[in-house]
Amino acid sequence: MHDCTRLEKPIAAAQITSGMGVDDLTRALGGCGFGAGRLAQACDIYEAMVRDTATTKFFGLAGAMVPAGMRSIISGLIRDGYIDVLVSTGANLVHDLLESLGLPHYKGSEVVDDNELCREDIDRIYDVYVPELHFTHLEEHLLGVFPEMGDQISIREMLSAIGKSLNDPDSILRAAYECDVPIFCPAVQDSMIGLHAWLYRQTNPLNVDVFADVHEFLDICFESERSGVFIIGGGVPKNFILQGTLMTSKGFDYAIQLTTDRPEYGGLSGATFDEAKSWGKINEDAKSVAVYADATIALPIIVAAVRSRLR
Amino acid sequence: MHDCTRLEKPIAAAQITSGMGVDDLTRALGGCGFGAGRLAQACDIYEAMVRDTATTKFFGLAGAMVPAGMRSIISGLIRDGYIDVLVSTGANLVHDLLESLGLPHYKGSEVVDDNELCREDIDRIYDVYVPELHFTHLEEHLLGVFPEMGDQISIREMLSAIGKSLNDPDSILRAAYECDVPIFCPAVQDSMIGLHAWLYRQTNPLNVDVFADVHEFLDICFESERSGVFIIGGGVPKNFILQGTLMTSKGFDYAIQLTTDRPEYGGLSGATFDEAKSWGKINEDAKSVAVYADATIALPIIVAAVRSRLR
Amino acid sequence: MHDCTRLEKPIAAAQITSGMGVDDLTRALGGCGFGAGRLAQACDIYEAMVRDTATTKFFGLAGAMVPAGMRSIISGLIRDGYIDVLVSTGANLVHDLLESLGLPHYKGSEVVDDNELCREDIDRIYDVYVPELHFTHLEEHLLGVFPEMGDQISIREMLSAIGKSLNDPDSILRAAYECDVPIFCPAVQDSMIGLHAWLYRQTNPLNVDVFADVHEFLDICFESERSGVFIIGGGVPKNFILQGTLMTSKGFDYAIQLTTDRPEYGGLSGATFDEAKSWGKINEDAKSVAVYADATIALPIIVAAVRSRLR
Amino acid sequence: MHDCTRLEKPIAAAQITSGMGVDDLTRALGGCGFGAGRLAQACDIYEAMVRDTATTKFFGLAGAMVPAGMRSIISGLIRDGYIDVLVSTGANLVHDLLESLGLPHYKGSEVVDDNELCREDIDRIYDVYVPELHFTHLEEHLLGVFPEMGDQISIREMLSAIGKSLNDPDSILRAAYECDVPIFCPAVQDSMIGLHAWLYRQTNPLNVDVFADVHEFLDICFESERSGVFIIGGGVPKNFILQGTLMTSKGFDYAIQLTTDRPEYGGLSGATFDEAKSWGKINEDAKSVAVYADATIALPIIVAAVRSRLR
Repeated sequence: MHDCTRLEKPIAAAQITSGMGVDDLTRALGGCGFGAGRLAQACDIYEAMVRDTATTKFFGLAGAMVPAGMRSIISGLIRDGYIDVLVSTGANLVHDLLESLGLPHYKGSEVVDDNELCREDIDRIYDVYVPELHFTHLEEHLLGVFPEMGDQISIREMLSAIGKSLNDPDSILRAAYECDVPIFCPAVQDSMIGLHAWLYRQTNPLNVDVFADVHEFLDICFESERSGVFIIGGGVPKNFILQGTLMTSKGFDYAIQLTTDRPEYGGLSGATFDEAKSWGKINEDAKSVAVYADATIALPIIVAAVRSRLR
Repeated sequence: MHDCTRLEKPIAAAQITSGMGVDDLTRALGGCGFGAGRLAQACDIYEAMVRDTATTKFFGLAGAMVPAGMRSIISGLIRDGYIDVLVSTGANLVHDLLESLGLPHYKGSEVVDDNELCREDIDRIYDVYVPELHFTHLEEHLLGVFPEMGDQISIREMLSAIGKSLNDPDSILRAAYECDVPIFCPAVQDSMIGLHAWLYRQTNPLNVDVFADVHEFLDICFESERSGVFIIGGGVPKNFILQGTLMTSKGFDYAIQLTTDRPEYGGLSGATFDEAKSWGKINEDAKSVAVYADATIALPIIVAAVRSRLR
Repeated sequence: MHDCTRLEKPIAAAQITSGMGVDDLTRALGGCGFGAGRLAQACDIYEAMVRDTATTKFFGLAGAMVPAGMRSIISGLIRDGYIDVLVSTGANLVHDLLESLGLPHYKGSEVVDDNELCREDIDRIYDVYVPELHFTHLEEHLLGVFPEMGDQISIREMLSAIGKSLNDPDSILRAAYECDVPIFCPAVQDSMIGLHAWLYRQTNPLNVDVFADVHEFLDICFESERSGVFIIGGGVPKNFILQGTLMTSKGFDYAIQLTTDRPEYGGLSGATFDEAKSWGKINEDAKSVAVYADATIALPIIVAAVRSRLR
Repeated sequence: MHDCTRLEKPIAAAQITSGMGVDDLTRALGGCGFGAGRLAQACDIYEAMVRDTATTKFFGLAGAMVPAGMRSIISGLIRDGYIDVLVSTGANLVHDLLESLGLPHYKGSEVVDDNELCREDIDRIYDVYVPELHFTHLEEHLLGVFPEMGDQISIREMLSAIGKSLNDPDSILRAAYECDVPIFCPAVQDSMIGLHAWLYRQTNPLNVDVFADVHEFLDICFESERSGVFIIGGGVPKNFILQGTLMTSKGFDYAIQLTTDRPEYGGLSGATFDEAKSWGKINEDAKSVAVYADATIALPIIVAAVRSRLR
């Protein structure tokens, strides 16, 4: 005889209707298996995480989300209190800075002669183009910001100073500055912001200590009553957010990851939240789910659904 | 100087709002890159394909879509004229048959002791469970159908006879029967329907010629003024639908594939539509796109969006 | 305190030396984690499977292995007793037939204008090219074979008749014919062999019953004392080989899969062998492993290693 | 008529024999398509890169290569002159440090109760285990190293000081120290080395400027007559190595990547070398190839083959 509890929830076929809302859709997928069920579960967990006011909400941002057109979603989440702490790759901040200065990305094609693009001074990010001239404007802007920001600062403070210099309300950097949401970027030298900071530093006083903002980050972890994390991709942001728990011995209570990586190759980006439990990074009774999907598809859906539920 | 046409379309950051509809969402992603842009494009192409009344619409169904809860979507598409010809794996039809007989799948977990499940006579399909007892009921039903259907039939006719035997309006097999939508299933012996047909045939007259329905399939291809294809996964359904063009020398005009396979390993499931153009399977000026996503996520979105546009 | 048995086997760093043999390499990876460890384990299991003379050895062949240059490996395995039963996609047999008739595939590039290729009558399979003219020669050959083979045959017999018609010792079809290794191809109509059989059948008597060779296949399963399976890719060959166990209630004792599919999307090609245990397809105490790798890389290594061990 | 040059190189079926060497194997795959052909090409490019004495050889190390047992391969490459500059994630250096202190990793299983592991103080990395006690020993060692290394240093110098403190000849950190191969680790604070440096810095003078070693890195780039890069995985090491070219305007002449990421999701780890050409990161006439494979499989093969060719 089988364990009766195993057969308690029949799969409920998704009913899809014309005119349905995104939140209706995510609810319609709640009784489904595979990715559909995981997506629905991610909406439920994110809703619970945001509703739980005792929870500090971390957000890890890797992948080329800003070039793909996802920055208004992120800055909106910051402005509306869905994100308390942002950990990002340098690249997403560089591309946010470009857009914030009115320097757009362009929709191109991944089927193209890249040597021709090179001769035309166009840089390609899959099917998105960036004119190289944009980076000259970015440099000019940064050269105006660096002298303003003090010569002994942390990476977090440097990013805050850049946010302060911007006017664009859709800017991630600006929104974080205005809302006092700290942005951590452990590998900032691995970006155009970093390279220009280095260039500036060649002839000007500037000391950015690698570890200067670690204290601030860990304090937030220590002081959290409960904590939740929403991870886009993986990479340094995923590892950095989760490693805080190794110092605080307080695992996460809510965890969502949107990824296309997989566990079998052993890298951290594809590691499961179960694996993270062995390290104590995720609590035994945490609500957690990974959605195996392109984040440019899954993030807008989850945000639309959870915003609908919380309005 | 760069080619000005390359920089004509700035990426438009997706604006996500509470209460938005699925179609709004897909339009909000239209100016984005990566998967978001591809998903939006798939909606546009599917809308154009369905609106083009001169187009014969093929649908290829692989993967375990029915166990995951996707069968009402498929049967609804059949009933509402979005599918003219269905090519399926045997498994999807077997699981549709189970559900049509009132034998549900259950939502389980992929983290489980499979040896225990085996002892409890529960079969697992990732996070979906099926009690083995269901297959006994399936056999009983089929034993009642086989004698009714003539002893010299094609696979297509056999599937039609099974559809006729069902009452469930959500059934793919029933909907296809009612709507005169032919279902082709080239590897039917590679399924429980096939195994039971073989068992029956041990003691009863039954001859199902492998090639008996190829003519019907090719006739549909020949007679199509234009043609479009929507492919879930890949496998035999993808190859079978596309190979028709090798006989007719008429490539497809519209093509959408939802897949997580990739081109670099060389298999047909992951082959691009560009590759298909070298074979003449897809026309040079066809509207085509592959969305690299779990079909249980992408299909419901596309269907909700296109149904909204066409209501 | 931890369970001491968990920490019994230290990872042994791979020692790679110049001039080392493939078998040395696979042994050097035996103490490693991730894919390296899995590859080493696959060699051990394949060695054990072949050494166990009471085991019937099934081989499932999907993906475009023959166009990629893997056919001598397969035909060699047949000739040397590593394969007792072959289940293949139609495509691999079609491309084996081309090569066996002296009609080669060519090394091309995946970065190419496919519309130009189409105009030049060259078909592309990722980075491999096939001139369309080859298919005319294939048709001519088949038109000579069909009349010889009787008009009431099974798919297995049809493939055997084609093998008989060939001279190339490297041919999979020929090797199987000579060695009395049956080839099953459940979706044969989903291939150029099938389309030409259908064309021939338009004007000649030919009846190929779908289920005619199922008995032969199941008899082999029933009569096996023990059984092992080596699966390339997944698809119909994987499902067909494993479903035999549903009729015989005898699971496999050895199982190896080389695949790049993944479990989370729910399709059978990516399903784990653990999942297969819930169905009873794989025995509880079976030796089994999946290697997540391009089969054109993993298969040659495993074959070289196991041949070295067994010489 | 087709372009004759397209059909010049027939696919040469791989001939696999018992007792063959790894280099024989890679040569046997040279006439194959898909991953087999790419692997063979990677060997040829790596051989050419190492033979070209005017080339500075960069190596990017991401993924959990050291826990999987790959560190002797890396340290051997450093000692034998195959690597001039190493850019690594912090994690690989932490795990190298563990092993160098005689604190092994253990071969475990990915199918395990992670909550139990947590209670047993065992951390899991896919199928590899690390006892948490190891990290206490790591801390003790580092506390002895930090006071020795000066209080105003770069990340590169800090890693060199750690290498100096070790005796294990198989150690990556030690080999780099002995051979004067600089190790760059842009996100060092995203690792246990970084966390302990931060802890030490709470009560001791230590200033590690983020940008202090960028000059050294860029000088190497500037001074290279030609340059080559071997990338494991992607992540920060890939981006950091390639972004040097944006400052020097000198693209790479040789480039190999072993990855399982894919281009379609837009992230840098999966970006093709063609895309990199649009940025000028890779030269138009560079020899470059990506091998889509688990690096724990592909790296040992390539190293064994190239070592054989260069002995």
